[in-house]
Amino acid sequence: MTLASAPPLPRDDRSVGIVSTNMIDLFSAESPLKLESGVELGPVRVAYETYGQLNEDASNAIYICHALTGDANVAGKHSPESKKAGWWDGMVGPGKTFDTNRFFVICSNVLGGCKGTTGPCSTNPATGKPWGSTFPFITIGDMVEVHAQLVRSLGIRKLLAVVGGSLGGMMALDWAARFPDMAHAIVGLATSARLTAQGIAFNAVGRRAIYADPNYKNGDYYEGEGPKFGLALARMIAHITYLSETSIERKFGRKLQNSDQLGYVLQQEIEFQVESYLHYQGQRFVERFDANCYLYLTRAMDYFDISQKYGSIGAALGQTAARFFLCSYSSDWLFPPSQSREIVTALLGAGKNVTYLELESVKGHDSFLLELEELESLLKPFLNSISSEVMTLASTRSGGSHR
Amino acid sequence: MTLASAPPLPRDDRSVGIVSTNMIDLFSAESPLKLESGVELGPVRVAYETYGQLNEDASNAIYICHALTGDANVAGKHSPESKKAGWWDGMVGPGKTFDTNRFFVICSNVLGGCKGTTGPCSTNPATGKPWGSTFPFITIGDMVEVHAQLVRSLGIRKLLAVVGGSLGGMMALDWAARFPDMAHAIVGLATSARLTAQGIAFNAVGRRAIYADPNYKNGDYYEGEGPKFGLALARMIAHITYLSETSIERKFGRKLQNSDQLGYVLQQEIEFQVESYLHYQGQRFVERFDANCYLYLTRAMDYFDISQKYGSIGAALGQTAARFFLCSYSSDWLFPPSQSREIVTALLGAGKNVTYLELESVKGHDSFLLELEELESLLKPFLNSISSEVMTLASTRSGGSHR
Repeated sequence: MTLASAPPLPRDDRSVGIVSTNMIDLFSAESPLKLESGVELGPVRVAYETYGQLNEDASNAIYICHALTGDANVAGKHSPESKKAGWWDGMVGPGKTFDTNRFFVICSNVLGGCKGTTGPCSTNPATGKPWGSTFPFITIGDMVEVHAQLVRSLGIRKLLAVVGGSLGGMMALDWAARFPDMAHAIVGLATSARLTAQGIAFNAVGRRAIYADPNYKNGDYYEGEGPKFGLALARMIAHITYLSETSIERKFGRKLQNSDQLGYVLQQEIEFQVESYLHYQGQRFVERFDANCYLYLTRAMDYFDISQKYGSIGAALGQTAARFFLCSYSSDWLFPPSQSREIVTALLGAGKNVTYLELESVKGHDSFLLELEELESLLKPFLNSISSEVMTLASTRSGGSHR
Repeated sequence: MTLASAPPLPRDDRSVGIVSTNMIDLFSAESPLKLESGVELGPVRVAYETYGQLNEDASNAIYICHALTGDANVAGKHSPESKKAGWWDGMVGPGKTFDTNRFFVICSNVLGGCKGTTGPCSTNPATGKPWGSTFPFITIGDMVEVHAQLVRSLGIRKLLAVVGGSLGGMMALDWAARFPDMAHAIVGLATSARLTAQGIAFNAVGRRAIYADPNYKNGDYYEGEGPKFGLALARMIAHITYLSETSIERKFGRKLQNSDQLGYVLQQEIEFQVESYLHYQGQRFVERFDANCYLYLTRAMDYFDISQKYGSIGAALGQTAARFFLCSYSSDWLFPPSQSREIVTALLGAGKNVTYLELESVKGHDSFLLELEELESLLKPFLNSISSEVMTLASTRSGGSHR
């Protein structure tokens, strides 16, 4: 093997490296964010990260919206000792799909979140105590308003692309409707124009698990233990919906926790491996997430319905000249392919330019976080094409001069 | 309209009328039921109901196995004032599919249940207190052993058919494997030879909701309130799996509890109608069911795997000469049609006589309790055919004499 034929670096070696989260205060008490509910909120603190360099004309920025329980840390690590890289590290970095050698990538924790951005566990300036149950009702649209304000504050007028999976995809769609001139492309993965009734039902039962926890105390639990059991249960329920039957079957099947053989046990709380796995997921989740945030964000997700607000999906997305890239996964039953097809049909009906990828995958809803190779094979050229168009446009506008 | 062209009586007018539950003690301390775990249990009290008349040679009996939360009351009412008839009243009665003018129909509450048959909420004769957490681990096979003993005690050597849906269908399959000569036909609706890994996951999370309830007290809660929140949550989770996405969508869609319009609310616990519905289902369930029973019965369901015990489905069901009738429902994702097809394939491979019906339905797993017309159109002639065969056989054996 010669140096010339050396394989490209493995995905994990193309890291953005050590990164840190920035904080910025947007809006203010005098000039607050006006929420869709009519309530005013300001200032709004936003936790965000950026990767790569913004180019001179601020035309290479890509905004990534995280999903329900994500945060601003998309890629890289916060310290060399940290074992875990950002939630989409496989996608963001030098030479990766969101190539930080070329693009300036931004991600922020959503409004209502618990990872630095103002949310129910933040301090209410009026009382000096956590907002808790007094935090105002928020919508996907409110989150997008904050994202857009962040982008403006970074000196960016138009993004190359707004990208998101699941709840993040809902934000990307809302962005296209709300700010039709702010992005050249909208990328929505494993997403929908509204959650299914079944999805609402699962979220509702998860919220009820939190309400039923005696430590919930109507949301004002910050001086106590907090509804750990309820939040863990909500996560366990939700986690099943992120997987497919096939993926659970392949990963755990009917395997018992303490034996490879089915046997008869006497009153043993954790029996099946899938139970142990879900229990573990629930426990880890409680360590990193806040129950009120979970309530506020799932409610925002449940209320999101882009066709309800604008009349139809086509009307909502018809105002933008952005190109669309949508991707769904065959075994995703929480955001099923039929919902992506509904958006694609509406976009085509509205004369929009849309690339749609329906990937075979057994990994269910989580596929957009796990099945990166095939996604990259289409999304990378899509982003390159958008980028070339934008550069050509800029070059034409500047009279073809070569800077 | 003349009398001659009067339509047949509507289904609800063909009732078995007012019925009552019988109690019988089977096995005994001296001659106990030997559970699959090796533990011995006796006596076992069994709550059962019968409808119609057993014929002279005891050849017209049909045994119906109830599902997870059913009871012995399949048909009819316990009092004229009662608003609710038995759980399968549409199927059992004069002229109905299980025609009580012709068949002698039996149903008993399962071992481990809380509707009269010995279970964790029964009194442990050794202590004079409820069994609670000391009740032994039970299996589907143990339940079937009790059913078979009940049948024998009624003077029946061979049943015309053993019938069940869901968990009841698992019992019917186990019966075929365990007592291959005790039934002429096995009828399994919306059932499987083993629960899916996803089904186990949902059951496991439901059990965890009960364990996490502070009133669970390790199962010995009978002097206290009991884990009402946990049990209600478990039921809410399970209830979603009994419905299909389409049925939830059609019934509730995204409709809010207090308005037909999506609006923005401030901290309101129950928002969507589906949430209110599930909450109501959870509350009603707690009034009629015991948390320990729910734990024991779901565990029995999770452990059931007929191919694990006998080597394969074909080996398990290959010993009986019974004819099989299986039915699955297109939108049933808890016991999907693929699982019924697996049984059908194994039965055909074992040279068995099997009738298989795959019904289109939007009602999910609950279809076997709701979609009765189409089921009747095939099951009725199937039962008639079995009945005729048995009568012909009896008549041949008795030398063709006409009694």
